Amino acid sequence: MATCEENEALSSVLNQVPPLLTDLYQFTMAYAYWRAGRHNEPAVFELFFRDNPFGGGFSLFAGLSDCLLFLQNFTFSDDDVEYLRSVLPAGTDDAFFSYLRELDCSSVSVSAVPEGSVVFARVPLLEVSGPLAVVQLLETSLLCLVNYASLVCSNAARFRLAAGPTRRLMEMGLRRAQGPNGGLTASRYTYIGGFDLTSNALAGRLFGIPVAGTMAHSYVTSFSSLEEVWPQTLAPCGGGGDPIDFICLVKGWLGRVCQLLGSKTNLVREGELAAFLSYAIAYPQNFLPVIDSYSVSCSGLPCFCAVALALCELQYRPLGVRLDSGDLCRQSLEVRRIFKECSKQFSVPQFESLIIVGTNSISEQSLAELNKKDNEIDVVGVGTHLVTCTRQPSLGCVYKLIEVRGRPRMKISEDPEKSTLPGRKSVYRLLDTDGHPQMDLICLSEEPAPKAGVPLNYFPLGLNKAVQTVTPVQVTSLRLDVFTCGQITFPLNSASESRERAQISLQTLHPHHKRLQEPHDYTVALSERLHTLVSDITKGNSKGSNFLLSN
Amino acid sequence: MATCEENEALSSVLNQVPPLLTDLYQFTMAYAYWRAGRHNEPAVFELFFRDNPFGGGFSLFAGLSDCLLFLQNFTFSDDDVEYLRSVLPAGTDDAFFSYLRELDCSSVSVSAVPEGSVVFARVPLLEVSGPLAVVQLLETSLLCLVNYASLVCSNAARFRLAAGPTRRLMEMGLRRAQGPNGGLTASRYTYIGGFDLTSNALAGRLFGIPVAGTMAHSYVTSFSSLEEVWPQTLAPCGGGGDPIDFICLVKGWLGRVCQLLGSKTNLVREGELAAFLSYAIAYPQNFLPVIDSYSVSCSGLPCFCAVALALCELQYRPLGVRLDSGDLCRQSLEVRRIFKECSKQFSVPQFESLIIVGTNSISEQSLAELNKKDNEIDVVGVGTHLVTCTRQPSLGCVYKLIEVRGRPRMKISEDPEKSTLPGRKSVYRLLDTDGHPQMDLICLSEEPAPKAGVPLNYFPLGLNKAVQTVTPVQVTSLRLDVFTCGQITFPLNSASESRERAQISLQTLHPHHKRLQEPHDYTVALSERLHTLVSDITKGNSKGSNFLLSN
Repeated sequence: MATCEENEALSSVLNQVPPLLTDLYQFTMAYAYWRAGRHNEPAVFELFFRDNPFGGGFSLFAGLSDCLLFLQNFTFSDDDVEYLRSVLPAGTDDAFFSYLRELDCSSVSVSAVPEGSVVFARVPLLEVSGPLAVVQLLETSLLCLVNYASLVCSNAARFRLAAGPTRRLMEMGLRRAQGPNGGLTASRYTYIGGFDLTSNALAGRLFGIPVAGTMAHSYVTSFSSLEEVWPQTLAPCGGGGDPIDFICLVKGWLGRVCQLLGSKTNLVREGELAAFLSYAIAYPQNFLPVIDSYSVSCSGLPCFCAVALALCELQYRPLGVRLDSGDLCRQSLEVRRIFKECSKQFSVPQFESLIIVGTNSISEQSLAELNKKDNEIDVVGVGTHLVTCTRQPSLGCVYKLIEVRGRPRMKISEDPEKSTLPGRKSVYRLLDTDGHPQMDLICLSEEPAPKAGVPLNYFPLGLNKAVQTVTPVQVTSLRLDVFTCGQITFPLNSASESRERAQISLQTLHPHHKRLQEPHDYTVALSERLHTLVSDITKGNSKGSNFLLSN
Repeated sequence: MATCEENEALSSVLNQVPPLLTDLYQFTMAYAYWRAGRHNEPAVFELFFRDNPFGGGFSLFAGLSDCLLFLQNFTFSDDDVEYLRSVLPAGTDDAFFSYLRELDCSSVSVSAVPEGSVVFARVPLLEVSGPLAVVQLLETSLLCLVNYASLVCSNAARFRLAAGPTRRLMEMGLRRAQGPNGGLTASRYTYIGGFDLTSNALAGRLFGIPVAGTMAHSYVTSFSSLEEVWPQTLAPCGGGGDPIDFICLVKGWLGRVCQLLGSKTNLVREGELAAFLSYAIAYPQNFLPVIDSYSVSCSGLPCFCAVALALCELQYRPLGVRLDSGDLCRQSLEVRRIFKECSKQFSVPQFESLIIVGTNSISEQSLAELNKKDNEIDVVGVGTHLVTCTRQPSLGCVYKLIEVRGRPRMKISEDPEKSTLPGRKSVYRLLDTDGHPQMDLICLSEEPAPKAGVPLNYFPLGLNKAVQTVTPVQVTSLRLDVFTCGQITFPLNSASESRERAQISLQTLHPHHKRLQEPHDYTVALSERLHTLVSDITKGNSKGSNFLLSN
């Protein structure tokens, strides 16, 4: 469970989600309900998305904690109400604004899939019930909080799958996100989706995500001469010895390294050497420079080896290098080869465990290719393609009315994909004999739960699919009550708790559903009773959407 | 200029950009500078992007006000510093944290292109000068504030060009943006880029953007029967007459409308009619329903016409309809035809000026196609493709060191596109005889400004382009001093002021640079002296990046 401090921090950041951050039409609709005396009618909405993102077979659900904190704090200030008074049409009854001023979510309840769960298209992830006008007003903000969180979390999970299980992944997309909050959201939810580290310091502070980073090219290019290195000495690790002239020590190593590599010391950039020296003197136990500011082979790599060998001589452990341009695989192989040669030639076993970080416009595809090709990259940093979700920058979640005053509601579109599923529902996940999820079954909430070992009929979602039968081996209920009459009733998960759930949830998923390309379709199905209700309403046989019989 | 209130509101929203929202490596670098006693060396960075977005010929610059407010408020809290102490490597000198605690931007100055200006790739948009460690720390936040703002603003300008000058454009992307702040940023900067309206109520309040919106499908589907309509009466406009039984009046009109259209009243959805009735009674002067919840031709359109005719009979002015699915062009033509028939048949001239709003996953391309095809859509609402910038979700701005202690700095990459331009610069825009911008010329700041009527040599940016000569007709300086020693020295523009600048700036741009497809390349060029400096540093002939001559 999240710590108190974390919740407070989270909550203070999320106080940035004022209830006015919504579409104006929520207020015009709320007024029309209020004017008709319908605002307190019990109503139910559900939130879902229509297609799994990125051409994949699954998604991860995220954003729930943000939603719950938003609901808990949902009230309009006097200023909000005055603004609304100024933009709603003239003639809006004054009493409506008093009503808005008093509103909160104390009559709202929510059931939801836990954050970090593997989910599928068309399955209702969030069911929001309460007074019609209030649950309508919540629409845009809830969509905004779930949409991007789930999308970027799912994107991160795909990068994780593409990278293989052992390579470490670092998120570094803050500068390319949709503004400050976009960047913070990205750091949180890519961590939940399976990343290991972030460059974002505030995300580290707020969410407890491990942070990392050492230097940019600007640090390297800010140096031009060895005269800028200060102090010029470094004491051996442990503090037991006198400070050594570190520049002199490194120069000695540089000669030997260049000899070993067959490279020329006069192609080494003095500024790059100065930058590495200076950084190593400041952080002798955290030496991981970016080595491509000029030329990796002529300058960056010889400079790194010289400084790192000098550090080793003083009993420090250099960490490794970062490559940020060019062919990362080829370069990493070359860099590793040199590390091994140094290790052998100079008897420095520390050089066997140096890490190589690669960061150059990594996409899911380039990561998957990198994973297939020979390379020596231990840590991959990903920015733009991860946080902007280049391949599909929106999940397209929707929030649809499914019941009013106990009567199922349905939107019947001329575009069948845009039709909705009426009525309150329960969602069950059926597992196969190996414990893999095999189907999500959507039932009406008044139906009894499916039982393990008992055959049941179902209608797979999709165009005109016929009835089929399955005997589930194990049945779990997908959603939990998380918010009841204004109170959060489910522990707010910390980022690392949700991350753990995501890992477990992904592990149980069958590999053919996890494939990044052409995954098997996962079955999402309706119970017979729900299927019948849909048919009845579509044909106009139900109270759901009467035709006008007489006028 | 922005009002005080607006600035305060803006500022309070932007207090959400704490200086800790940056990459960790900014702090490790700052420490290394500090440790070497270099933190106060005067340094200069510049911010630019490498390619015009969306395959276009230009971009709009935006995000400047946010940057200035961020700089003005830049200080670390005790909590920030304690967090940094916990994550920076052990051995970081305590005095560094005291230094951080005292930091602010009182020694920082910025010159920048005014917000809303047309700009081009490779031109330095922002020049930030100040103490090395401080200006380094600002990198990520400034990039984060400019990147998305400029991208989405440029995207909006392209939608505006695609839509033609008269069609009204409404932004409605909040639910698909990268979280709450992403949505707010999108609303502000799409307005600056040329949109007319937003659905985002908070953006309306904070930035004075006109807001719009009436109803969603859920409103329509929440009704099932005419019994839910209450009150059932409506007084004629002006309040001079007795309330009329509005349901009865509308039913009468529905019969006549169905007769005119040759449609059947028993295909009309009672719930849809009830929803329209109820909304019209609540907002008789603002009746603009969404008419595709069931079937436009069988139910939505006849219901609209009946209610709108009844409103006209009571001297109200209905506004129009919204279409949200299917072939918008075809449907709008049909809807307009029916409006005209009603106008003629029932002598209601108000039906001639009804508006048709179209909102169905509009992209730049679909908008351009719509603009070519016959249609009757007056207002287009755009969400996902606008705010997520589907075609290119990142601008890729970078922030590069160009000078330290008065000496030019340059990154020389093996990838020439990643090399930077050294030294402090002035940027001039040369205009041709028609007043169109013909070239942006980047000079060293110590060079005299180009003069109208005096020929000058230049080197167009690009691979190995030879020297050329131009005689400018008019010369303007592109950047202004906007922040001097910690103070904002340029009026913070309101959204509508920046919007006006964008419109004027776009108007002066030659049409062949504005073309959405295959625009002419705009010339960005270096002065002879800057070109010489670049060559010298690249060859290692300058103090910029010495080779190591002796060791």
